[in-house]
Amino acid sequence: MNVGMLGELFATISERGRRLIERRTELGSGPRRASAVIELAEDLLSHRGEASGVARASEILEAYVRFSPDERAIFFDALAGRFGVDPANVAAAVEAYRASPSEEAAQRLHLAAEPRRQELFRRLNLAPGGTQSLVDMRTHLIAMLKSNPRWEVVDRDLVHLFSSWFNRGFLVVKRIDWTTPAHILEKIIAYEAVHEIRDWNDLRRRLQPSDRRCFGFFHPALVDEPLIFVEVALTIDLPAAIGPLLAAERPPLAARDARTAVFYSISNCQTGLKGISFGHFLIKQVAEELKKELPELETFVTLSPVPLFATWLDAERKAEGNAALPETDRKTLELLDEPGAFENDLAKKALAPALTRAAARYFLAARNAEGKLIDPVARFHLGNGARLERLNPFGDLSPKGLKQSHGMMVNYLYDLERIEKNHEAFADAGTVVAAPVVKRALAKRAD
Amino acid sequence: MNVGMLGELFATISERGRRLIERRTELGSGPRRASAVIELAEDLLSHRGEASGVARASEILEAYVRFSPDERAIFFDALAGRFGVDPANVAAAVEAYRASPSEEAAQRLHLAAEPRRQELFRRLNLAPGGTQSLVDMRTHLIAMLKSNPRWEVVDRDLVHLFSSWFNRGFLVVKRIDWTTPAHILEKIIAYEAVHEIRDWNDLRRRLQPSDRRCFGFFHPALVDEPLIFVEVALTIDLPAAIGPLLAAERPPLAARDARTAVFYSISNCQTGLKGISFGHFLIKQVAEELKKELPELETFVTLSPVPLFATWLDAERKAEGNAALPETDRKTLELLDEPGAFENDLAKKALAPALTRAAARYFLAARNAEGKLIDPVARFHLGNGARLERLNPFGDLSPKGLKQSHGMMVNYLYDLERIEKNHEAFADAGTVVAAPVVKRALAKRAD
Amino acid sequence: MNVGMLGELFATISERGRRLIERRTELGSGPRRASAVIELAEDLLSHRGEASGVARASEILEAYVRFSPDERAIFFDALAGRFGVDPANVAAAVEAYRASPSEEAAQRLHLAAEPRRQELFRRLNLAPGGTQSLVDMRTHLIAMLKSNPRWEVVDRDLVHLFSSWFNRGFLVVKRIDWTTPAHILEKIIAYEAVHEIRDWNDLRRRLQPSDRRCFGFFHPALVDEPLIFVEVALTIDLPAAIGPLLAAERPPLAARDARTAVFYSISNCQTGLKGISFGHFLIKQVAEELKKELPELETFVTLSPVPLFATWLDAERKAEGNAALPETDRKTLELLDEPGAFENDLAKKALAPALTRAAARYFLAARNAEGKLIDPVARFHLGNGARLERLNPFGDLSPKGLKQSHGMMVNYLYDLERIEKNHEAFADAGTVVAAPVVKRALAKRAD
Amino acid sequence: MNVGMLGELFATISERGRRLIERRTELGSGPRRASAVIELAEDLLSHRGEASGVARASEILEAYVRFSPDERAIFFDALAGRFGVDPANVAAAVEAYRASPSEEAAQRLHLAAEPRRQELFRRLNLAPGGTQSLVDMRTHLIAMLKSNPRWEVVDRDLVHLFSSWFNRGFLVVKRIDWTTPAHILEKIIAYEAVHEIRDWNDLRRRLQPSDRRCFGFFHPALVDEPLIFVEVALTIDLPAAIGPLLAAERPPLAARDARTAVFYSISNCQTGLKGISFGHFLIKQVAEELKKELPELETFVTLSPVPLFATWLDAERKAEGNAALPETDRKTLELLDEPGAFENDLAKKALAPALTRAAARYFLAARNAEGKLIDPVARFHLGNGARLERLNPFGDLSPKGLKQSHGMMVNYLYDLERIEKNHEAFADAGTVVAAPVVKRALAKRAD
Repeated sequence: MNVGMLGELFATISERGRRLIERRTELGSGPRRASAVIELAEDLLSHRGEASGVARASEILEAYVRFSPDERAIFFDALAGRFGVDPANVAAAVEAYRASPSEEAAQRLHLAAEPRRQELFRRLNLAPGGTQSLVDMRTHLIAMLKSNPRWEVVDRDLVHLFSSWFNRGFLVVKRIDWTTPAHILEKIIAYEAVHEIRDWNDLRRRLQPSDRRCFGFFHPALVDEPLIFVEVALTIDLPAAIGPLLAAERPPLAARDARTAVFYSISNCQTGLKGISFGHFLIKQVAEELKKELPELETFVTLSPVPLFATWLDAERKAEGNAALPETDRKTLELLDEPGAFENDLAKKALAPALTRAAARYFLAARNAEGKLIDPVARFHLGNGARLERLNPFGDLSPKGLKQSHGMMVNYLYDLERIEKNHEAFADAGTVVAAPVVKRALAKRAD
Repeated sequence: MNVGMLGELFATISERGRRLIERRTELGSGPRRASAVIELAEDLLSHRGEASGVARASEILEAYVRFSPDERAIFFDALAGRFGVDPANVAAAVEAYRASPSEEAAQRLHLAAEPRRQELFRRLNLAPGGTQSLVDMRTHLIAMLKSNPRWEVVDRDLVHLFSSWFNRGFLVVKRIDWTTPAHILEKIIAYEAVHEIRDWNDLRRRLQPSDRRCFGFFHPALVDEPLIFVEVALTIDLPAAIGPLLAAERPPLAARDARTAVFYSISNCQTGLKGISFGHFLIKQVAEELKKELPELETFVTLSPVPLFATWLDAERKAEGNAALPETDRKTLELLDEPGAFENDLAKKALAPALTRAAARYFLAARNAEGKLIDPVARFHLGNGARLERLNPFGDLSPKGLKQSHGMMVNYLYDLERIEKNHEAFADAGTVVAAPVVKRALAKRAD
Repeated sequence: MNVGMLGELFATISERGRRLIERRTELGSGPRRASAVIELAEDLLSHRGEASGVARASEILEAYVRFSPDERAIFFDALAGRFGVDPANVAAAVEAYRASPSEEAAQRLHLAAEPRRQELFRRLNLAPGGTQSLVDMRTHLIAMLKSNPRWEVVDRDLVHLFSSWFNRGFLVVKRIDWTTPAHILEKIIAYEAVHEIRDWNDLRRRLQPSDRRCFGFFHPALVDEPLIFVEVALTIDLPAAIGPLLAAERPPLAARDARTAVFYSISNCQTGLKGISFGHFLIKQVAEELKKELPELETFVTLSPVPLFATWLDAERKAEGNAALPETDRKTLELLDEPGAFENDLAKKALAPALTRAAARYFLAARNAEGKLIDPVARFHLGNGARLERLNPFGDLSPKGLKQSHGMMVNYLYDLERIEKNHEAFADAGTVVAAPVVKRALAKRAD
Repeated sequence: MNVGMLGELFATISERGRRLIERRTELGSGPRRASAVIELAEDLLSHRGEASGVARASEILEAYVRFSPDERAIFFDALAGRFGVDPANVAAAVEAYRASPSEEAAQRLHLAAEPRRQELFRRLNLAPGGTQSLVDMRTHLIAMLKSNPRWEVVDRDLVHLFSSWFNRGFLVVKRIDWTTPAHILEKIIAYEAVHEIRDWNDLRRRLQPSDRRCFGFFHPALVDEPLIFVEVALTIDLPAAIGPLLAAERPPLAARDARTAVFYSISNCQTGLKGISFGHFLIKQVAEELKKELPELETFVTLSPVPLFATWLDAERKAEGNAALPETDRKTLELLDEPGAFENDLAKKALAPALTRAAARYFLAARNAEGKLIDPVARFHLGNGARLERLNPFGDLSPKGLKQSHGMMVNYLYDLERIEKNHEAFADAGTVVAAPVVKRALAKRAD
C-alpha cells in the first residue's frame, strides 16, 4: 500500500461521497458552468462533512480542468473578490484590536484577514490529485497574471500555501538513472529546459555512462512528478564548453578518475511552483551526495548559460560614447555581425579577449534598471553562495548559444566551505564574488 | 536514496553550516541558556542564508531538547510575547486598512497580524528532524497549558501549521502486520492506548492470525513514526465483548469466512498532534481497503469503550429524585456496589436491562454542561457519521472496564452509504443516530 | 543489499583472489590463449580453495569472452574430450558394478560416468556473472553444433545443469509496464521476436494503455534479464487479425470491460536456454494472475502465427495429383501468385474458404517426416493443453505474415479446466484438440 | 508481484490440477497411506503433464508432512530401493559401454546409473513450498540415518541436488537489523545456536546498537528463511571474553571508532542443508561488506567457543604418564575440580598459563583417531583460511562455557590477504596456521 493506493482510496471515497450528494446537475459550459463551480466552492466552504467535502472538491477540480480561458477568468475573479476576506469581519476585528490590542486580538485579526480562498484551497487539496490540480491552476493563473494584476492576491496566497506544503523537509531527493521507471524518465525528456534531450537514446547518454549523474527532488503528494532535477557530468578539469561534454562519441570517464562534478543543467519542472525555490538546496545536497559516493571529487562547478548577455552587449555596442566598451573592443566585436565568424579561427582569436572583457563587465559592473545583476542565472547561483569562476567564450556554439550569449558560457564554483560567506556578501552588499581571473579580465585594457 | 538519506544530508549540511557560524558559545544552562536560545531564534529570524539557517535551527532544537521545565517556560513565554506580532506593524496595517480597505490592504493586515513565531516555526522545521521536534515541543506545551493560559496563542499557531503540514493528502496509509519492521512494531506496543499490548507475543496475536488486521497513517517527515493506527478483528457477527475477541486461545477465523470487520482499538500516537484529526479518515479508508481485499465483508463496526459512563451513572444514582433513573433501576443498580456482582449470574441477569436502559439514556438523553454528548468516544464516532448500533452490558469485565463503565461497551456502525447523512444530522442538529434497539431501550419501562 | 550487491561482493573477492594467485601470465591470443585457458580450467578443477577458485573462474570467463570462433572451437573440443569422463574411472566402476551390483555401486558408477566438465561448469558458475556467461557459452555452442556433432555431449550437460538451475520454483514472474525501469524495457524492445517493437513510442503502446499487459519470468542469477515474456491484449471478442489489435490509433478498452485476454506475442530471450521450457508455465501463471485482477475475463486465447504454412502449402500446390488439395481449391489458390490479391475484396472472398480448408488440413491431417505436427507454434500450444480454436485467413497481412503463412493466423484457446486433458490427448496419442468449426473446415467440400 | 505471489500462483494451479485428477482417494493412514503415497510418486514419475504433475507433487508432500516415523521409514525404504536405479537399464548401459566405450556411451551410462529418486525429487520440487519440504525431508532422514545406513544413497542424492539448487551464485546476503521484519527476526531468535537470545529485548541488544551488525544468506525458494547468519560486534581491540561483549549495560561504541569486527556467533538455520557449506563464504562477504561501510576497520576476527576442549583435557588429565601434560600443569589443573575456582583470583592466576598451554597443545599437537584436528569449530575456520590468533582462558564463564571448555575461547583471525595461503597450507598439509603467541604457548615450559 502506498501513496498511489492512497490516491485510489481517496478516489473511492470521493466516488461514494458524490453519490451521497446526489448532485445530478449537468454543470453545462461557459459562464453558466463557471458560476455553478463557484457555487460548489461556496458549498464546500460552508460544509464540514469529510466524505462530501472530498466529493465536492473533486467535482470542482474536474470541472475546472475543462474550463476555457474565459471560464478560468471568471473563476479567478471570484477567487480574488468573492473568496477574499469578509470586510465586515475584518472591520470588526480591526475595531476589537484597536479597542484592546493584545496577542489574542492580533490572532483574531490575523484570522479575519485571511481570505476565504485560503481555506478553499486547503479543502480542494483533499481531493485525489488535488495538490497537482492546484499547482496546475497556478500555472494558468501566472499565464494570465500580467494582464490581470488584480489576481496577484490569489497568486500570493497560492505561494504561501505551496511554501508550506512543499517545505523542503518533505522533499525526497532521488537519483535518476537508466534503471529509473520509464514513466518518470519520459518526464525528464519533457522537462529538460537547458540542453534539449532529443529522444530516448539521447536520454540514455545523459544517464547511463559512468561519468553521468542525475538527481531530482520529489514530493509525496506529486508522486512520479519531479519538481526539479539537475544533470551532472563527471570530469577531470573545469569544462569550458558544452559541446564536448555532451558529444555522443565521447569516451566515458571512470567515475573514480573524476575530480570535478559539473552541474550542466538544472530544470524546474512545475511552472505552478515558480518562486518556491528548491534549486540551491538541491545543488548543495547533490554535492554532498556525490562527495560521499566519490570522495576523490574536489571541485563542484556549473557550466551555465548567460541568457541575457547578447541582448545587453548588442545594446552596449549601439550606445553612443559608451565608456563601458573600449573602442578597440567595440571595433573587434563588429566581427559578431559577420556570418561564420565563429568558424573562423582568426576571428575567434580576436573575439575571445573582447568577449571576455565584455562579459566581465556584464557580470561585475553592469546592472539593470533596478540596480540588480542583469543575468538571472547569475543571480541564482551567486545568491546560492557560488563564485563566478571562469568566463568561457565559445562555450556554446549551438544556434541557441550564439543567439543568447554570442557563445559565452560561465562556470560558477560551489565551494562548500565558502558558500555561506559568499551568499552573505551577495545578499547584504550585492557583492559578486568572482575568481581573480574574472576580475582581472575587467581590469585589463584592450590595447 | 530516501527520506532517511535526506535527513542525513540535511544533517551534513547543517554540520558544515555550524562550522561556518563558528559559534563556539557554550550555551550554559538554566535561564542563561534559555536566553541564549531566544537570541539564536532572533538571529534565525533575521538572516536568510540557507546553510547557516539550518545550522541555527539545529542548534536551537538541540538546546531545546535539554531544557528543564523552567527553561521551557522561559522559552514559551518568549514565543507568546516577544515572538508575537509587532504592535507597531499591526497598528500601521490597521490604519492603512481603515483608510482604504481593499483585498491588498487585508492581505497586508493578514501578514502584519501573523505572529513572528509562525515564521520561526517554519524555519525551525528545516532542521533535520525539525518536524518531530516541533511536535514534541507542542507535547510539552500542552502539558503546561492549563496553568499558563497565556500560551494558548502559541498552541493555536502550532495547530495551524501542523494542520497544513499534516494535510491528509500527504499521509500514507500502510498495513501493519507481522512482516512489518521491528522498530515500527515496538511503537505499536508503546502507543496502544485502548487495550494494552503486554509484550511481543501479545503483539503477534494482534497482527498475525488470519482474522486480524492493523493499519496506520504515516507522514514522510516523521519516518517510521505512526501518527495513528487502528486494530481490526474479522468476525462473523457483531461482537458483544472484548474478552473473547482478544482471547489468546481463540481459533482464528479464515479471512474469507468473515462478514464483519470490528475496529476494536484506535490509538493516536503523537500527543503533540492533538486536535489534528486523522481518525475518521483512517477508519473510512481502512473500511474501503478491507472491502477491496475481502468483498464478502458486509458490516464495519467498532467495539468501543464508554469512558465516562460509570462517572455519570454514579452521579445519577446519588442525585435525589432523579427522573432519569426509574426507581426500580436505581434499586437494581445497588448491586453494582456489591463485590462480585459481575461473577454472579443472577445479579448479571438483573443488571443487564437496568444498565442497558441507563446507557441508552446516557447516550440519547443526557448531556454535559455545554449541552453536548457526554461521551468523547461517542462524539468521535457519531461525528464521523457512525450509528450507535448496540449496547453491550458486560462487554469489558476487566478492572479498567468495570471502573470506567461498569463493564458496558458499545458498537458503532459505519455504514458507508449513510455516514454522510448521519454526520450532517449529528453536526447540524446534534441528533444521535441510533439503531431501533437502542432507542427502544430508552423508551422501555423498567417495571 | 541485494543480488546486485552480491555480485559486487563476489567481484571484490575474486579481485583479491586474483592477486593471491599472482598469475601474471599474459594469456596471449589464438590457440596459445585457448590452451592457457584450458590449463586454467584444469587448475580450477584440481583445487578446492574458494577465493582462488572464484578468481580462476573469473579469469577463464573473462578470457573466454574475448575468444575468436577458432579459439571457441579449441575450447569446446577440450570440453567434449579432455573434460569428459576418465575412461579408467568408468572402467573400474563398471567392473565393480558387474562384480557386485548394488545401489551404492550404481551411485559410484553414476559419479564415475559424470563428465568432468559438469563439475567445471559448476565451478565456473561461482564467478560473478558466471550463470550469464555459461548461458552465453551455450549460445555460441548451439551456433556451431550442426557442423560439430561431437559437441552434443557438451550441450546435453549444459541442458542438464540449466534445467536444475532454472528450476521453475526459482523463477519470479513480474509484470512489465510503463513503470518498469528503462534498462529492462530496452531488453523487451530487443528481444521481441514475433511482432517487432520499433522504438520507445511503439513500446509504450504495448505497455501503457488500459487494455495491455505484459509479464516476464526472471531468475535471481540473471538480474535484470527477462528469460521469456508474454504480451497480452484485453479485448471483448476473439480477435481475428493482428493489425487492428496493434493499431496505433486504436481507442483503448477499459480493463473491466474486457472479457478476453489475448496472448499475442511470446518471446524467449536467451538463446542459450533453448530447450529449457518456461513458456507453458508462464502462460498458465499469467492467465491465473489476470483472472485474479480481472474476474470478468472469460476467455484466454492466443493470436498466433503459422510459421510453416506457406512453405507447406506451396509444396502441396506443386505436388502432382495431390489428394490433400481439392482441385477447385488448388485452382483458387492460384490467386496467391497474383500480386495485390490481398487488396482485392473479390479475390479475398474466394481465397478465404480455400485457405481455411488448407489450414485445417495443415493442422489436423498433415504431418512431417517424423510423423509430427508440422507447425512448431502449434506443437508448443497444443503440447501445453490448448485447443486449436479458430483459423483466421487475413490475420496478418504484413509482408512477414504474407510470406510465412499467406496471412493466416490462428487462435489457440487456453481453457484452464481442460488443458490437462487436452495435453494428455496430444502427448499420448498425438490428438490435435480442435474446435468443431476447425474440424468442419477439414470435412467441408470445396465445391 | 514477487516470489510470494509466485508461490500463490503455483498453489492455484496445483489446486486446479488436483481437481482435474479427480483423485478422491482417502489416503488413510499408516502403512496403507505410505503405500498410497509411493504409488502417487510412481504416478508422478510416469506422467509429464505440468498441471497434474504439480498437483500430484503437492499431494505427496502434503501427505508426507503428516507421516509418522514408521511411515517415513517405509517411504525412505522405497526411495533407497524401488526409486533407485533400474538394474536392467544399468546392466544394458554397462554392456554397451564395454562394447564400445565413448563419451556418448558414458553419458548414457551416467543417465542409466542415476537413481529414479533424483528425478522424483526434481518433480516434487515443483510443488509450492517444495524446496522447503525436501529440506525438511532430509532433516528427518538425517535423524534416522545412523540406524538405517542403507538410506545413505538417498542422503547423497539430496546433497547433490541441494548443492546445485543452493549454489552460492543464487544466494542473497542481507543485513539483518532492528528494521528487519518481525517474522524474520523471530527466526533469528529461534536459530541462534551459539549464545542464546532470550527474548526480543535481548535480540534488540544484538541488532540495534551502533556497534552491532548481523548478516544472513537467503535463497529465493526459501523466502523469509535465513540459511545461515553471523552476528558481529564492532570493537577497538581483539576481545578476550564474550561476557563483556554481550553485557546489557555496555556503552555502545560509535561505528566509526571501531577498528575490529568480531564474528562472535555463526548459526546454520536449516538442518536439512547440513554439509552444504555457506559459512566460509558468508564470513568473507561480510568482511568485505563491513570494510566498505567502515574503511577504518583493520581486523576481522572471531571470538569462538572450543567445544571439545574440556572433554579432551579431562581425558588427558586422567591418562597415566601423559607426556602431553607436564606434571606441574596436571597438578595445577586439579583446581578445576574445586567448586568456585573461577571466582577465585588466585586460582585463576594459577590456571591461566596451564589452561593456555593445554589449549595450545589441543590445537597444535593433539589429533583425533582419524588424525584430524579435534575441534570442529577450528576445522571450520582454519579450513576457511583463518589463523588461530589468541587463546583466551576465562573467555566464557557461563555454565555452558565452563562445561565445554573450562571457560576457554579463542580468536580466529581473517586476514583477507592471507586466507588463501592459509587455506592451502591447512588443506594440503594439515598445517594449523597460528600466531607466534600461540606457538610459544606450546613451546613454553611450565616450571
